[in-house]
Amino acid sequence: MNKPKYGPPHHSASPRYTGLRTYMKLPNVNDPHELNDADIAIVGLPFDTAASYRSGARFGPAGIREISMLLRPANAFHKINPFDYCSVIDFGDLPLIPGHIHDSYDVMKEAYRQFAKHNVVPIGLGGDHSVTLGELRGLAEVYGPLSLVHFDAHGDTWDNYWGKKYTHGTPFRRAAEEQIIDPNSSIQIGLRGTVYSPDDMDAAKEMGFQILTAEEARELAPKQLSEAIRSRVGNKPVFLTFDIDFFDPAYAPGTGTPEPGGFTSVEGLSFVRHLPLVNYVGFDLVEVLPALDQSEITAQLGAAIVYEFITIMALKNRDGKT
Amino acid sequence: MNKPKYGPPHHSASPRYTGLRTYMKLPNVNDPHELNDADIAIVGLPFDTAASYRSGARFGPAGIREISMLLRPANAFHKINPFDYCSVIDFGDLPLIPGHIHDSYDVMKEAYRQFAKHNVVPIGLGGDHSVTLGELRGLAEVYGPLSLVHFDAHGDTWDNYWGKKYTHGTPFRRAAEEQIIDPNSSIQIGLRGTVYSPDDMDAAKEMGFQILTAEEARELAPKQLSEAIRSRVGNKPVFLTFDIDFFDPAYAPGTGTPEPGGFTSVEGLSFVRHLPLVNYVGFDLVEVLPALDQSEITAQLGAAIVYEFITIMALKNRDGKT
Amino acid sequence: MNKPKYGPPHHSASPRYTGLRTYMKLPNVNDPHELNDADIAIVGLPFDTAASYRSGARFGPAGIREISMLLRPANAFHKINPFDYCSVIDFGDLPLIPGHIHDSYDVMKEAYRQFAKHNVVPIGLGGDHSVTLGELRGLAEVYGPLSLVHFDAHGDTWDNYWGKKYTHGTPFRRAAEEQIIDPNSSIQIGLRGTVYSPDDMDAAKEMGFQILTAEEARELAPKQLSEAIRSRVGNKPVFLTFDIDFFDPAYAPGTGTPEPGGFTSVEGLSFVRHLPLVNYVGFDLVEVLPALDQSEITAQLGAAIVYEFITIMALKNRDGKT
Amino acid sequence: MNKPKYGPPHHSASPRYTGLRTYMKLPNVNDPHELNDADIAIVGLPFDTAASYRSGARFGPAGIREISMLLRPANAFHKINPFDYCSVIDFGDLPLIPGHIHDSYDVMKEAYRQFAKHNVVPIGLGGDHSVTLGELRGLAEVYGPLSLVHFDAHGDTWDNYWGKKYTHGTPFRRAAEEQIIDPNSSIQIGLRGTVYSPDDMDAAKEMGFQILTAEEARELAPKQLSEAIRSRVGNKPVFLTFDIDFFDPAYAPGTGTPEPGGFTSVEGLSFVRHLPLVNYVGFDLVEVLPALDQSEITAQLGAAIVYEFITIMALKNRDGKT
Amino acid sequence: MNKPKYGPPHHSASPRYTGLRTYMKLPNVNDPHELNDADIAIVGLPFDTAASYRSGARFGPAGIREISMLLRPANAFHKINPFDYCSVIDFGDLPLIPGHIHDSYDVMKEAYRQFAKHNVVPIGLGGDHSVTLGELRGLAEVYGPLSLVHFDAHGDTWDNYWGKKYTHGTPFRRAAEEQIIDPNSSIQIGLRGTVYSPDDMDAAKEMGFQILTAEEARELAPKQLSEAIRSRVGNKPVFLTFDIDFFDPAYAPGTGTPEPGGFTSVEGLSFVRHLPLVNYVGFDLVEVLPALDQSEITAQLGAAIVYEFITIMALKNRDGKT
Amino acid sequence: MNKPKYGPPHHSASPRYTGLRTYMKLPNVNDPHELNDADIAIVGLPFDTAASYRSGARFGPAGIREISMLLRPANAFHKINPFDYCSVIDFGDLPLIPGHIHDSYDVMKEAYRQFAKHNVVPIGLGGDHSVTLGELRGLAEVYGPLSLVHFDAHGDTWDNYWGKKYTHGTPFRRAAEEQIIDPNSSIQIGLRGTVYSPDDMDAAKEMGFQILTAEEARELAPKQLSEAIRSRVGNKPVFLTFDIDFFDPAYAPGTGTPEPGGFTSVEGLSFVRHLPLVNYVGFDLVEVLPALDQSEITAQLGAAIVYEFITIMALKNRDGKT
Repeated sequence: MNKPKYGPPHHSASPRYTGLRTYMKLPNVNDPHELNDADIAIVGLPFDTAASYRSGARFGPAGIREISMLLRPANAFHKINPFDYCSVIDFGDLPLIPGHIHDSYDVMKEAYRQFAKHNVVPIGLGGDHSVTLGELRGLAEVYGPLSLVHFDAHGDTWDNYWGKKYTHGTPFRRAAEEQIIDPNSSIQIGLRGTVYSPDDMDAAKEMGFQILTAEEARELAPKQLSEAIRSRVGNKPVFLTFDIDFFDPAYAPGTGTPEPGGFTSVEGLSFVRHLPLVNYVGFDLVEVLPALDQSEITAQLGAAIVYEFITIMALKNRDGKT
Repeated sequence: MNKPKYGPPHHSASPRYTGLRTYMKLPNVNDPHELNDADIAIVGLPFDTAASYRSGARFGPAGIREISMLLRPANAFHKINPFDYCSVIDFGDLPLIPGHIHDSYDVMKEAYRQFAKHNVVPIGLGGDHSVTLGELRGLAEVYGPLSLVHFDAHGDTWDNYWGKKYTHGTPFRRAAEEQIIDPNSSIQIGLRGTVYSPDDMDAAKEMGFQILTAEEARELAPKQLSEAIRSRVGNKPVFLTFDIDFFDPAYAPGTGTPEPGGFTSVEGLSFVRHLPLVNYVGFDLVEVLPALDQSEITAQLGAAIVYEFITIMALKNRDGKT
Repeated sequence: MNKPKYGPPHHSASPRYTGLRTYMKLPNVNDPHELNDADIAIVGLPFDTAASYRSGARFGPAGIREISMLLRPANAFHKINPFDYCSVIDFGDLPLIPGHIHDSYDVMKEAYRQFAKHNVVPIGLGGDHSVTLGELRGLAEVYGPLSLVHFDAHGDTWDNYWGKKYTHGTPFRRAAEEQIIDPNSSIQIGLRGTVYSPDDMDAAKEMGFQILTAEEARELAPKQLSEAIRSRVGNKPVFLTFDIDFFDPAYAPGTGTPEPGGFTSVEGLSFVRHLPLVNYVGFDLVEVLPALDQSEITAQLGAAIVYEFITIMALKNRDGKT
Repeated sequence: MNKPKYGPPHHSASPRYTGLRTYMKLPNVNDPHELNDADIAIVGLPFDTAASYRSGARFGPAGIREISMLLRPANAFHKINPFDYCSVIDFGDLPLIPGHIHDSYDVMKEAYRQFAKHNVVPIGLGGDHSVTLGELRGLAEVYGPLSLVHFDAHGDTWDNYWGKKYTHGTPFRRAAEEQIIDPNSSIQIGLRGTVYSPDDMDAAKEMGFQILTAEEARELAPKQLSEAIRSRVGNKPVFLTFDIDFFDPAYAPGTGTPEPGGFTSVEGLSFVRHLPLVNYVGFDLVEVLPALDQSEITAQLGAAIVYEFITIMALKNRDGKT
Repeated sequence: MNKPKYGPPHHSASPRYTGLRTYMKLPNVNDPHELNDADIAIVGLPFDTAASYRSGARFGPAGIREISMLLRPANAFHKINPFDYCSVIDFGDLPLIPGHIHDSYDVMKEAYRQFAKHNVVPIGLGGDHSVTLGELRGLAEVYGPLSLVHFDAHGDTWDNYWGKKYTHGTPFRRAAEEQIIDPNSSIQIGLRGTVYSPDDMDAAKEMGFQILTAEEARELAPKQLSEAIRSRVGNKPVFLTFDIDFFDPAYAPGTGTPEPGGFTSVEGLSFVRHLPLVNYVGFDLVEVLPALDQSEITAQLGAAIVYEFITIMALKNRDGKT
Repeated sequence: MNKPKYGPPHHSASPRYTGLRTYMKLPNVNDPHELNDADIAIVGLPFDTAASYRSGARFGPAGIREISMLLRPANAFHKINPFDYCSVIDFGDLPLIPGHIHDSYDVMKEAYRQFAKHNVVPIGLGGDHSVTLGELRGLAEVYGPLSLVHFDAHGDTWDNYWGKKYTHGTPFRRAAEEQIIDPNSSIQIGLRGTVYSPDDMDAAKEMGFQILTAEEARELAPKQLSEAIRSRVGNKPVFLTFDIDFFDPAYAPGTGTPEPGGFTSVEGLSFVRHLPLVNYVGFDLVEVLPALDQSEITAQLGAAIVYEFITIMALKNRDGKT
């Protein structure tokens, strides 16, 4: 196997805190014509118009990139340098427009369609969770309906907020309605806390989603969760979306709608490290809100999850499994 | 069953971050004559004169109310909307006087006596832990000596600080001396850390208290702890007091005397969600100190515990158990 | 003169940090039928969808109300207790919808029309500066085109941002186009910093606005500025809008688009205290962003400016001048 | 002149950030028998029971000492190394008892009486402003009634708060009643903001105090203010008390009752540097509240004012003036 | 047994927040001639020149001392007051020179040689982790090569950073090369996260170190880990070094190179409380960085670990075990 | 005149908060061969090894770039878009090595020599103030001894710290000794605060420097200061170095050795905006320390000063003056 074209610079060149803030100092490539040489593209999705409580996630991509400087290239858990197996770029930010969700969806749809056409797996950095609908629209144009693997404190399948259909609490009901995801091969993991009505989760189940509440997920060993996901999604194209509020506010204070009683970093990282090597066509990590972060711990945890996504793709490339 | 008179407004009326900061936007009712229609009263106890280390808990009630906006009405764990079963008001703050603990105790005693007389269960928002003595005095006038269920890093049964008898480290020794609690049907859970003398806990046990240290409590499943509490308090009137420093400082940094090695939010919430449905006549949640909080995580955890107290009462009302 | 119906409670009743967070503990009156007894209504405008840089001003009203607890009733500079001359309520927040500026404008327009019809002078608490367009629309329905007195680092008369016409940088161009303000009797004070093109201010002047840059305003004594405003607006109905970023970031760090080189609190307060007693029909104080505030200094300065607005109306009522 | 016995260690010994946190690394001498060799004693007064709004000033002495490490020995403005002319110790903290103001007053009274008896000028580090009453009681036992030079946003001459006589808003009325200060040779500088009644300052004037409001003081050159003070106090024994909220919240955010429209650091330092070399028998710097401070700027400004007090005494010693 | 000469003052003397900031208010003894009466010396090592990412650990000793005020004397877990069995002093800070690691190493080496010669066990407060090399050099002069017990997220056995041999990521490779530690009786616990190359840990193992990764250590009960350590070090002289980034960033945000997926406070404290009572000749707790800390939780956890080190020595003294 | 090759992207392309964090989104050009098309290069100098108090300025360049996103292209004060007259790049960071000042100096020297050879004016972003010595060494190789225009609270002409010659407090004595600056045509502005000895400034004057203390500078109108500088430096090659601690800590809290009594943003910006259009061959802005910053106000002020440096060069290019 040839060395991948794009990867981070060698660590001995200069201290980690130096240099421009792309994710892990990856090359900033945002010419669609150069996508052919990339396997994975980090993509900033700076948008927070659809947040229902605290706004500010528009600075999420910048926050994650800033602390990603601290990451070293190799994964000690998997004993792999993922950049030996994947060519990875930082595509920069998409020009989303605050206050204009539909325009922003169009931008995302087109960009993600291009990624899919070039066989590039995008890893989106949110932004509030509404961005996932835009991502899914673009990928579904190429791949058809996707299976959703969804880590979150909230199901985000509510019908509307204040009568409005497009918010960060509603994207997956919209996606199901638009038939760009297939709820019957999708799974939501980590839901908890207060809801609007006692039967909120039943409603999502009626739409077809499998739900593992936080209490249920916590009972599973990482490998069990991995199997549950694998059996749910099979070999369909998968989009994995990870809301940072899956973690407890102690671990991820910098987010818009924190929910006590969440997962620890060890639990979340372990779940992600054991994910099945299925047919991922896209990922995102959303809802990092730097203005409410503390010592960058939220952004760092988000950056670590993104790093594990890259590793998953590298493991797939190395092992040839799907 | 009729719909309870007082509850939060419907969530679709306006975004959660709008509106006046009563707890969960509950009606602000502070006319004693209107207590007849309420089952539960949230009561602010803004007082920190008796704090032995950091002061500032006087802003605890405001901090908890502010972040309580984020709470949705229904409890996903128990699959219940507690406001379908309980009429709940926010009584506002009691006019406690900084620097004057005895005057403040008189104010609390009278207010809590009124709550008890009207069969209203008060949920106090502290304030430093000295406030509980005032609450107990008022309730005991109506109910007689109470059984104490006490979650805390510290037993608060020391005799004095610097020769002074009324501090936030001494209320439960005073309460025992005043015979307004019955140590022999009381239990303290979560004690840990450094103490003044190796036999501090033995002294409390000699007073009659049952103590589960943090190490002991951590070994128990929530249902086991629940049973331990039920068998301890029987059907006596119970006051449950919860010091936010029961949690580890990572989960509750905004408090006056944090103690490393504490409980996670999952542990604490699980304990509270499995509490036995015994004869609670009052609750409080104390020692939230917003000036030292980070991204409101301490206040949010406090607000969540208070919400679970409301749920307990709703479960009791629904199930008719005691 | 009779004592005004609505005002803050007596300060000796309880410590300032107690009680529900209306502005200065004013009565929360939000029934339009009760407007007849009020002269002034504090109105929360929690909205930040139109922010071009940092979002989060949706929490501005809550932040201002929280620190307004610290205000005492009487004005030492003017030697007046304004609540002896004005009946003042806190109307609460308007139910503005994030992501939906036009719906939100409709809500504001209707509410402000009601205020105007009842001769109530609203003082809006922003929210990003886009809210002023909604306020003006409502007032102009009753009063016709208004003269604008505008304190700000930025003119907010740009035509569009990213092709979009309704942002917090464009409200006054829109207002001029809609003929709900009269630029030729309007004045903008404090503009400074970087702009998009060297002739940005010339464009505003061509629209009719008088502009005093920060450099020009700083040369004026408060009484001179007062005269400049008086001669500009005459006896037309006046709306005064004050963007907290008029102040230097050292004084007002908690805002969305801070601009170094701004005014001190002494300068700003002095300007406001010497404002001419002209025909004000509305005020607002916008762009307080609590998540970026430090020790509440921004919110406190905002609360102080609002207090001076109340004083202006009291002086008018006392002195019968216009 | 001999070299003074006590002073800071030589700066080349180790970096400034090393070493125990006495004020400027001065020797910690707290044996009353060693007072004979000291001219000045820094004294911590960690107390905040009497605060009417935010509490937390009990950590003020620690905060000031921590940042005092940054101070170099010589005064560039006055071209003097004050430690060449004064023997200065850090006496540590007095054992004040939270919640017990009268006990704490007794401790302060006795300690300050000892300082006075040994001709040591104490410089108190507050603590809320109530501490000054205790300091004055001790000094007045030896010196008789003192002239007060008082820099503050608030006069602190109110009669009571919530019916209580001993708070941080009332010490100077009490001191006048106790005849331990002489209002007729006392002066208050910097008062501003909101008050309880329009005639609050008139009441203080009737008690005999001279008041320079913030507006009046700002009009004076430092030398003019110096002359005003000198002519007011003559050669009587003087106590100078400086509340950090004299400064604007932008300069001193870490305080209990901040007041916008305050003085800049340049103004405050200049006033202090030009103080007349009158008969000072004590100083204090109060109301630093580290939990609300930002980057230690409040504590640093407090430490700088304390340093100028030391310089004043050095100038007096050098020049032999009174 | 006689009462140890040096220990903290009695807690009833004054509130915990008063007094000079030595560790737990221990006597500040820094005359080498007085070392004979001490068993343990707390030693500040304020140095951060060798940090590879965030700097600022030079304030670590001050941060730990400040919050150590909150510690009470007795250990509730072990039911012992360690100061009944050990004489403990705070030696203050060593005069390390920023930017000059070799000079600083010389200072540390000489001081630690003195400690060893006087049979005093030093507990160093870092400082970045490079300081441990200096400590080891001094102790090894007296004791010969030491066994290292090393809790950390990182092995710190890299060869160099940017071609430089002395950084906080390289001390234990240097120590092995200098033969002042014996890797073959040393153990590293808690390693995790990203590394430079997949075989980084293999390289350390080749040097002789035993490594328990975070995943491996988490599987062990505290007593199992204790046994693993005991069997590794035998009765050789042991130096225990604890990097605060062993803990998850949620528990220890104030550090230079945080690593998600770390240990909880309960896990870390439990490991330390069960440490075998082997032949410890020194300890340190490093990498606390107060400028990035939040509500002092990192420093507090560091102070608690240090307290447990003291307890270990007390248990040894009481029980006579090695 | 042709449009300059390098400048910021058009502002309507996307919201300001999007995109990679070069200074003002300028093109990142760091190939020496492309320097021919640039007039100005922004250069990050991330280094803090030589800081004497707080470290952390290594993150200064990142902090300044992050907030520089907020800057619009045109200068409202000078009515010029400087990018119409200057081709400006962001060269990225130089690979400076922490702990190794002389290696770092070599890197800077070589890079700056290249800038000088290509007639590119570098604007360095510090970093602690020691970096200026490296910059000067490189420029002096091409231009010969430079005149220094130095805005700072401190003269940084001390001989050594703790016996060490190369710190952030000593660069200009070294530069004078190395004859790479000419003190007799150099000027230092803004010095204040405490010093090591009363005659510290006299020593600098003896070396040839002209000093305007803060008190002296504050008395000058910006045009007077401009004239003073012009007459001092004549038409010699000039290096302008600006330490952010020239500003008061209220305006610039995020710095290593803050000094109360500093300049306001209005004063500092006005001084810089009126600088004489002399023969500048380099600039820097140093000592921004983001970990201690608040709401980015320090970094923003630094970014604004840098922007004014660019404007100065544009004015020179436009007007052809020197």
